[in-house]
Amino acid sequence: MDRYELYYWPGLQGRGEFVRLLFEDAGVDYTDVARLPEEEGGGARAVVRILKSDSRLPPLAPPVLKHGELLFAQAANICHYLAPRLGLVPSDEPARCAALQHQLTIADVVAEVHDTHHPIASGLYYEDQREEAKKRSAIFLADRLPKFLGYFERVLEHNGGWLLASGFSYPDLSLFQLVEGLAYAFPKGFGRAQATLPRVTALRDRVAARERIAAYLASERRLPFNETGIFRRYPELDPS
Amino acid sequence: MDRYELYYWPGLQGRGEFVRLLFEDAGVDYTDVARLPEEEGGGARAVVRILKSDSRLPPLAPPVLKHGELLFAQAANICHYLAPRLGLVPSDEPARCAALQHQLTIADVVAEVHDTHHPIASGLYYEDQREEAKKRSAIFLADRLPKFLGYFERVLEHNGGWLLASGFSYPDLSLFQLVEGLAYAFPKGFGRAQATLPRVTALRDRVAARERIAAYLASERRLPFNETGIFRRYPELDPS
Repeated sequence: MDRYELYYWPGLQGRGEFVRLLFEDAGVDYTDVARLPEEEGGGARAVVRILKSDSRLPPLAPPVLKHGELLFAQAANICHYLAPRLGLVPSDEPARCAALQHQLTIADVVAEVHDTHHPIASGLYYEDQREEAKKRSAIFLADRLPKFLGYFERVLEHNGGWLLASGFSYPDLSLFQLVEGLAYAFPKGFGRAQATLPRVTALRDRVAARERIAAYLASERRLPFNETGIFRRYPELDPS
Repeated sequence: MDRYELYYWPGLQGRGEFVRLLFEDAGVDYTDVARLPEEEGGGARAVVRILKSDSRLPPLAPPVLKHGELLFAQAANICHYLAPRLGLVPSDEPARCAALQHQLTIADVVAEVHDTHHPIASGLYYEDQREEAKKRSAIFLADRLPKFLGYFERVLEHNGGWLLASGFSYPDLSLFQLVEGLAYAFPKGFGRAQATLPRVTALRDRVAARERIAAYLASERRLPFNETGIFRRYPELDPS
């Protein structure tokens, strides 16, 4: 069987983490290529290499999945491809559409979280857009976060605690990751919102307690959140 | 056969347009529900009704596709579902993964275009974030647009003029729409960039010349771009 190879920048969770969680929950072996030592072909160079390969047409940005002859990008696309292979989504089309819809809505929130610290340009330093970041973060916490997570709260209520009525599936892993990231980046703002999100909080706890996820979170494979990723803790963006 | 029903805000192209183009190119009949007269169940109320229906769990935001018992959202998800049914993507998995990858990358650009005029909050008026919008637009035109469209230019070169090596497919329709929108919003900035994008420009022309697309663009079904959509022409965001 072809081996799964994930390419993502080493040193941060980023969008690669949404893919890693599928492999880890399924207990399926994969190579996180850029986290190999450089002498074994790893490091950031591995990502650059796959994005610059001229023998085939590479994607614009990581995460990139290589599986046999297949090579493609976009985290939601990768999850959509992997999930039926890893037993993380029912095989019927209504379930797969619902799962991808949730995954893309989570990706929308992730993009908005990124822009709380980079509202003007991802190519500029945070310090050069801090004032705008304060404005955007305040509105994100006041309006956007309750809108999105309130929606997921209703979905979980409707479906018995998971995003799909059929039970646990891959977007639950991504919602877990979103909640973990928000709790890291906005301990005060998200902490206040959590009181109104009992089902989202319970989902986070149940995913964290899944045997292979718990082992993963306790391992060195799970990178810590830090200020190079999507979810960044800048106290001035999370006032009391 | 079940009828395709699209729900999207009337009066603007928005993200609904990426779905409409598939139906129009395929020549497949569909109901653009909110554009029916109110007395026939249309208008913005139709969108509100589908988002608030309590008999099933509706998505968070339009576009929404209803097809028989299926009801789901996210434009890229809807296109991915429709394309094999409408003959707009090859049926093999590598092609479907490549197509969805392109569709999601185009969606990333669309989200960035939206934020050129709403960098702080989609819930605030443009006028209340105009200074930040000027900053974000300048960087979008200088850095992001060349990065994204330069990438698509390379893909088109590699694949003989279409995004997939197998020939025309649904993300080509979306790239057409992106180019049309950019040309509307940034006649100066995009006009300058176009000189370096001969294949992107040629793709736009070839899609516009497709028989059913040409008929659609000339019809009243094609809404004009305007300043309530994603692509907005604000001269101060597109200086000489």
